[in-house]
Amino acid sequence: MRVEQNGRITRQWCVEQDRGDPLGHFREAFAIPQGVIYLDGNSLGAMAKAAPAHAARVVEREWGEELIRSWNSAGWFDLPVKLGDMLAPLIGADAGEVVVTDTTSANLFKLLWAAADMRPGRRKIIMEGSNFPTDNYVAQGLAAARGLEVVLCERDGIARAIDADTLAICITHVHYKTGHINDMAGLTARAHEAGALAIWDLCHSAGAMPVDLNGCDVDLAVGCTYKYLNGGPGSPAFLFVARRHLGVARQPITGWWGHEAPFAFTSDYAPAPDIRQFLTGTQPVVSLSLAGAGLEIMRAADMAQVRAKSIALTELFIALVEQRCGGHGFTLASPRDAAERGSQVSFTHPEGYRIMRALIDRGVIGDFRAPDIVRFGFTPLYLRHADVWDAVEVLAEVMDGGAWQDPRFAAREAVT
Amino acid sequence: MRVEQNGRITRQWCVEQDRGDPLGHFREAFAIPQGVIYLDGNSLGAMAKAAPAHAARVVEREWGEELIRSWNSAGWFDLPVKLGDMLAPLIGADAGEVVVTDTTSANLFKLLWAAADMRPGRRKIIMEGSNFPTDNYVAQGLAAARGLEVVLCERDGIARAIDADTLAICITHVHYKTGHINDMAGLTARAHEAGALAIWDLCHSAGAMPVDLNGCDVDLAVGCTYKYLNGGPGSPAFLFVARRHLGVARQPITGWWGHEAPFAFTSDYAPAPDIRQFLTGTQPVVSLSLAGAGLEIMRAADMAQVRAKSIALTELFIALVEQRCGGHGFTLASPRDAAERGSQVSFTHPEGYRIMRALIDRGVIGDFRAPDIVRFGFTPLYLRHADVWDAVEVLAEVMDGGAWQDPRFAAREAVT
Repeated sequence: MRVEQNGRITRQWCVEQDRGDPLGHFREAFAIPQGVIYLDGNSLGAMAKAAPAHAARVVEREWGEELIRSWNSAGWFDLPVKLGDMLAPLIGADAGEVVVTDTTSANLFKLLWAAADMRPGRRKIIMEGSNFPTDNYVAQGLAAARGLEVVLCERDGIARAIDADTLAICITHVHYKTGHINDMAGLTARAHEAGALAIWDLCHSAGAMPVDLNGCDVDLAVGCTYKYLNGGPGSPAFLFVARRHLGVARQPITGWWGHEAPFAFTSDYAPAPDIRQFLTGTQPVVSLSLAGAGLEIMRAADMAQVRAKSIALTELFIALVEQRCGGHGFTLASPRDAAERGSQVSFTHPEGYRIMRALIDRGVIGDFRAPDIVRFGFTPLYLRHADVWDAVEVLAEVMDGGAWQDPRFAAREAVT
Repeated sequence: MRVEQNGRITRQWCVEQDRGDPLGHFREAFAIPQGVIYLDGNSLGAMAKAAPAHAARVVEREWGEELIRSWNSAGWFDLPVKLGDMLAPLIGADAGEVVVTDTTSANLFKLLWAAADMRPGRRKIIMEGSNFPTDNYVAQGLAAARGLEVVLCERDGIARAIDADTLAICITHVHYKTGHINDMAGLTARAHEAGALAIWDLCHSAGAMPVDLNGCDVDLAVGCTYKYLNGGPGSPAFLFVARRHLGVARQPITGWWGHEAPFAFTSDYAPAPDIRQFLTGTQPVVSLSLAGAGLEIMRAADMAQVRAKSIALTELFIALVEQRCGGHGFTLASPRDAAERGSQVSFTHPEGYRIMRALIDRGVIGDFRAPDIVRFGFTPLYLRHADVWDAVEVLAEVMDGGAWQDPRFAAREAVT
């Protein structure tokens, strides 16, 4: 256990790690509320301190003062491509292969549709059954619409399920519940061997760890900008199309933003020859522009350092929970091997829901996923080793004192 | 000519009209920049003065301080339905029939798909050929995907084109270039006689004039919130499904927000039985919430008064342009009969592009639509009769003095 010192981890040791942290200064770029230890950046990233001024500029100056002129003068119309180009290096893509637009679900619909057209005659889309549901729902809807079949299997069965009737695998890089990393390079290669396409969902990996789409020869990808990329609530999602497929892959929601000449107002649709074909309609400019405030910070970070710190924080958390809460019934649901784990740690506990409510009540914000998972996300840019220590201290207090049994925490509420 | 007095209209007469304007106080709710006469609210509505504080609250407090908790505590998750319910009375819909979400293009794709399923065996979608292109592009893409046919005709031919093979008409209520009002009640009745569905696009009518979807027995509708509803740049669009079709009509982009129990994280998609089935993925909360600032103002206005003032302003503008610029080659492209005209006035002019650039340079903001249309929108909530007078004075100066010939105005730029 690399975080251990003199047999046990101490808070002092954590503070020393923070002193030597090459990413430590990034915390200053984020507004973390007083009294909060935020372990839910894997669901909604924290706010950049620059975000309020950014929003004020877009609303008051660009909209309020410049009005319609901002479509050109403030570059609103180019934002999807501009932000896509900012995001590209974070996921191993090149400029011109990524746009920020719409929602992850809608983007996945577009890409699955395109994939089905690129592999005519093949019927199967291979997915992970325990994946975040929306991807599977979208694929089910598409499969019903096009007479295809969604084949669900668990992680160990994915490679085996790929066959000559497979049009695509559609796999989430890091599992939303367990944090398990799926093998992007290996599964993509296996898909290609079988003549299938590889589609990856980066919602839980983009910004949390190095992602190398082109290095892995990935065909298509989607992901969101509001988790580790800190784009703000519901900030538009992204999609990636490998350059070799641009001009070939075609999405079906053929709105004017995907037209080769949107302002020519011609009567027939003609697809843009580049990544813009994957755009559809007028984008929510304020939310979209705000995503830039998060990306601006992220692209200044060294992703190898991000990954190293992510591993250090998750290792520390696991060790501390086992050190301080060992007798309280938590079972690690994430991989113990850091190489297989994203930037989150999940434990199962039969009273997980009430425990999480008690933690949130004390300012330690993680989340709960039915039926019994307490989930903690570790965003390397704004979390410190000492925060991890303090969070586990609160967890230990909640468990030792039985605070989770407070009747206030019994009722279930939806938690996004 | 009801605006005339002593043979000619005077500025003094305009000022008197403003004094008696029952909607006059609404102007105070909007931030109109100094030196600007804004005649482009039909493209991007002006900013409510409350919008910056609204944005700051969502960004700084709801996101920055409350973080993930705001999905419940700030009602983010319910915004599409809540805003839809606010919007419903403005378009003659009932609560529970409207959601604010995604883009007009994406929403139209969803509804056309649903319509095709509701009229199996029928092949034709009837549209207006000169419609705003994105609707026609979306229909073309859908038709190609599903083996259907888009039949384009002009306004006088729509009714005649509807036949037993027609699955739906898909018509824009007010034409984006000319402002011509299409006959919602008549065409809907004609479609129903033939067993077809009626889908209406309200982009250029919602908030500008009374719309009575249920009174006209409309089946499905879409529209945007960033024109006359003043929701901000690219604020999410809306869609309407008549109550009789809820639970029957099904959209194809089956993301988790359309699931009957999105937080149960079950593996199979099960459609929400209500309007929420037409949602797909996580919405851009800042842009979405801001749309509420515009709707909050709009729903306090009497739509009959809005329509009366809209007619008065457009009548005044036509009369003044003809009075002051009669010899300068403008041809009215909008209906002269106010009963057939939405809240905009378009003229054709061979030098329209340069004339519009010269006007914008002088703070009179309208827009240009290829090949030769200068287009002026009249938002009754923040425009005064005196503004109309002043705008035409500037137009007269530009034409009398030949300022539009300035070489600065020769190059074409995209104008949204």
